[in-house]
Amino acid sequence: MGLFTKDIKTFEDLFEHTLKDIYYAENQVVKSLPTMIEKATRVELKNGFKKHLEETKTHVTRLEQVFKLYGLEPKGTTCPAIDGIIKEANEVAGEVADKQVLDAALIAAAQAVEHYEITRYGTLAAWAKQLGRPDCARILHGILVEEKRTDEKLTQLAESKVNRKAA
Amino acid sequence: MGLFTKDIKTFEDLFEHTLKDIYYAENQVVKSLPTMIEKATRVELKNGFKKHLEETKTHVTRLEQVFKLYGLEPKGTTCPAIDGIIKEANEVAGEVADKQVLDAALIAAAQAVEHYEITRYGTLAAWAKQLGRPDCARILHGILVEEKRTDEKLTQLAESKVNRKAA
Repeated sequence: MGLFTKDIKTFEDLFEHTLKDIYYAENQVVKSLPTMIEKATRVELKNGFKKHLEETKTHVTRLEQVFKLYGLEPKGTTCPAIDGIIKEANEVAGEVADKQVLDAALIAAAQAVEHYEITRYGTLAAWAKQLGRPDCARILHGILVEEKRTDEKLTQLAESKVNRKAA
Repeated sequence: MGLFTKDIKTFEDLFEHTLKDIYYAENQVVKSLPTMIEKATRVELKNGFKKHLEETKTHVTRLEQVFKLYGLEPKGTTCPAIDGIIKEANEVAGEVADKQVLDAALIAAAQAVEHYEITRYGTLAAWAKQLGRPDCARILHGILVEEKRTDEKLTQLAESKVNRKAA
């Protein structure tokens, strides 16, 4: 985007920009999950992150499908939001000595990522529908459902086991 | 936090750190909402943001109550996540020329903020409960409910009116 020009002129442009934003974000998540897998102590959490990494890779592919359906080349645009969320996750994780407390911190960090994705996919699915693209909306909504499920699983793991151990 | 020391030793430390994180975040939201109020075109959106600014100010006060109940001085710690989310909101808003499209972009930006707060309050309320502090958990859960309500109202406004106008 140009710094002195208003590059987003239409609703289509805004959709395209936000699609590039989440595409960049998902690619950053793919890069950061291996560190989270490595840092997690509890086996269920480690496996949960591993499964989520595989799922996230399919989100990247499914976003590429949306780009193509929409007649665009898949391309990312720097997303300061996800960069900030991941930076914060790394900073906090780096500060935690105790392994059980670290697991609780990792879950909180992963849920912040999930919620960012939930809000963006919710918005994008609604915009695609409004733009008369139910084909794109369907894919985006499908990813949204998976992100919500991951967030719920993390809540369950935290509340049933991890928080108790951390405390 | 120190860069070379593991400053978060216990679950209590993690709770305290995350409380400072959301306290900083809410204060940044108080600073950024007036610009969003100014930029919004649709009266309902402008008024919604105004109402949310007043509500956010009460969140700051209620967080101060949690700090006090927990025996701490209210204090923020830089939160790269909210800084990134707000930076992205400003960048995108600065790129949009059309007023109707800008309203859609402002709603998406506000929902990204709401989702960050939802994830943090959800985590903090669960941690406070686990730490045997139902008094703190109650306040945190009360704020969580309001953030969720704001997010739902924004979805309604987007889907019933703003997106249609933008398209």
